[in-house]
Amino acid sequence: MSSRGFHVAVVGATGAVGQQMVQTLEKRDFPIQKLTLLSSARSAGTTVKYKGQDIIVQEAKPESFEGVDIALFSAGGSVSKEFAPEAVKRGAIVVDNTSAFRMDPEVPLVVPEVNEQDLHLQKGIIANPNCSTIQMVAALEPIRQNCGLSKVVVSTYQAVSGAGAAAIDELRTQSQELLDGKEANPTILPVKSDEKHYQIAFNAIPQIDKFEENGYTYEEMKMINETKKIMHMPDLKVAATCVRLPVETGHSESVYIEVEKEGVSAADIKDLMAQAPGVVLQDSPEEQVYPMPAYAVGKNEVFVGRIRKDLDEEKGFHMWIVSDNLLKGAAWNSVQIAESLVKLEIVK
Amino acid sequence: MSSRGFHVAVVGATGAVGQQMVQTLEKRDFPIQKLTLLSSARSAGTTVKYKGQDIIVQEAKPESFEGVDIALFSAGGSVSKEFAPEAVKRGAIVVDNTSAFRMDPEVPLVVPEVNEQDLHLQKGIIANPNCSTIQMVAALEPIRQNCGLSKVVVSTYQAVSGAGAAAIDELRTQSQELLDGKEANPTILPVKSDEKHYQIAFNAIPQIDKFEENGYTYEEMKMINETKKIMHMPDLKVAATCVRLPVETGHSESVYIEVEKEGVSAADIKDLMAQAPGVVLQDSPEEQVYPMPAYAVGKNEVFVGRIRKDLDEEKGFHMWIVSDNLLKGAAWNSVQIAESLVKLEIVK
Repeated sequence: MSSRGFHVAVVGATGAVGQQMVQTLEKRDFPIQKLTLLSSARSAGTTVKYKGQDIIVQEAKPESFEGVDIALFSAGGSVSKEFAPEAVKRGAIVVDNTSAFRMDPEVPLVVPEVNEQDLHLQKGIIANPNCSTIQMVAALEPIRQNCGLSKVVVSTYQAVSGAGAAAIDELRTQSQELLDGKEANPTILPVKSDEKHYQIAFNAIPQIDKFEENGYTYEEMKMINETKKIMHMPDLKVAATCVRLPVETGHSESVYIEVEKEGVSAADIKDLMAQAPGVVLQDSPEEQVYPMPAYAVGKNEVFVGRIRKDLDEEKGFHMWIVSDNLLKGAAWNSVQIAESLVKLEIVK
Repeated sequence: MSSRGFHVAVVGATGAVGQQMVQTLEKRDFPIQKLTLLSSARSAGTTVKYKGQDIIVQEAKPESFEGVDIALFSAGGSVSKEFAPEAVKRGAIVVDNTSAFRMDPEVPLVVPEVNEQDLHLQKGIIANPNCSTIQMVAALEPIRQNCGLSKVVVSTYQAVSGAGAAAIDELRTQSQELLDGKEANPTILPVKSDEKHYQIAFNAIPQIDKFEENGYTYEEMKMINETKKIMHMPDLKVAATCVRLPVETGHSESVYIEVEKEGVSAADIKDLMAQAPGVVLQDSPEEQVYPMPAYAVGKNEVFVGRIRKDLDEEKGFHMWIVSDNLLKGAAWNSVQIAESLVKLEIVK
């Protein structure tokens, strides 16, 4: 670190997550000496505001990473695969928000509230988990620590912004068309490169990302595999069903868990959530207080409510977990990893 | 039955479900000799079309049920409690779509594909289950019969039409306001008579019906208790989390089950669904075929897809169940019960 701070690069600076990364760096007053904004050739030349300045976005090239201390990537897996090694070669530490390196055994997959110490194992690249995984493990880790955890069954309610800025536009345009009594003409969701596209406005699509051969989607397999890796629980039973909703931003999750300890009450789980770092307990049914995506937008925290003991299963509990998928699910978790790298003196 | 058919009454004929009841009676060409449409004093005097005729809706009074053979009720629990006994006293059989009598041990709670024979136990009133329960048990019953069933964990994705016509209006108006950059002014959802109201457009609300003291909503407890009663499985482990979505019509459910039999495969479950009465299998991930609410509207069937074996739990399976909540979830199931009453010669 120079006395004035770090040279930080954001790759994919014009995307939905990239823009949030720049704003989050600004809000957190991250110690930046120089900020380099990079993108594909197509978006290069546009400007992004940072602390009142217009910064011109440049086309990412291997040489772009000369002198960079920390590079935050969020421009798709293929861009990360091409340029992350180039950045590392030039001495940068990469925090990658794509799925390119997440399951690489050499790459730590980090949610700072859960496994910050894994950062010490880094060899240049650190992976930021999938948005829907991050908010879930942030809530589950204190339960694992205090009560043990044997089983997780999650059903997600995911916002379109997870599929990028074009998906937000599609939801808005399509909602207006349907309100006007016109036909919807879907071209983006559920997966732009897939053959079929379905109406998202006033609908629910049980497909996020492509299907694997086992009948699960990649999104579901990400939640399953990443949860086990982040929590260091290869034998944890995890199952996921991922569903896209007509919500702009904010992922919600209905989560069923089984703990190992006997005699745990819903009040115990609520106490754990009230004390958990990065988690806000919103759970007063008698006052209709529970988390909702529309009210979580723009906030860094993970909101947890609807905590109930299962009525038939002694060690079973239900909860409802909501967070801004562009912030804790992406930009904020990436910047938070960067802050941890500084705090742990892994970058200096 | 007179040679020309039955005298049928629909109570609540001007509501979202009542209108669907009249249309379903017409579509099914139910043997009707006389159709009496009833409502509260407020809606009396309006007309509803049946086979090209305008039928004037009359205020429901005890005498309205003189000569009625079958009365379909869908005007709220208090109306059913007041008038269903009056209808029975006058010789009618009541099919009640409210929650007023569902858990009464004297009242059969019927989904014809599951427990049609329970109709023989009727003493004048038959209850139509909650919308979200009906579509789930229709899919689960063939699994119970062939594989046994020990556990059900469901997370719902429910449409606003379950909360009535005013909730549909609220979703439309609010969606337009938010698209226009205005503030939302919620007054109906999640529960009109509750203190707080929340934005439903572009949001997800984890509250349907009021809260019980145990932290579950009435909707969740309905799913739990009604499933056990309909399937005659008082010891079945059932858990539910019920969530309202910005979808006009069509409930979806992410359902995790555990079966009793060993060695069951996802293909076995798919075969059962393909043969199940009233169920349509829509499950070809390789062709992006799965059920969605926007595409189930106006159809009587229950659509099932995304059937997968749990990756960690040998007897665990996941599935996605979608149906039109106003039809199989309400009007069609009620008319179907009426058809069964005729077929079984309980009314003649």
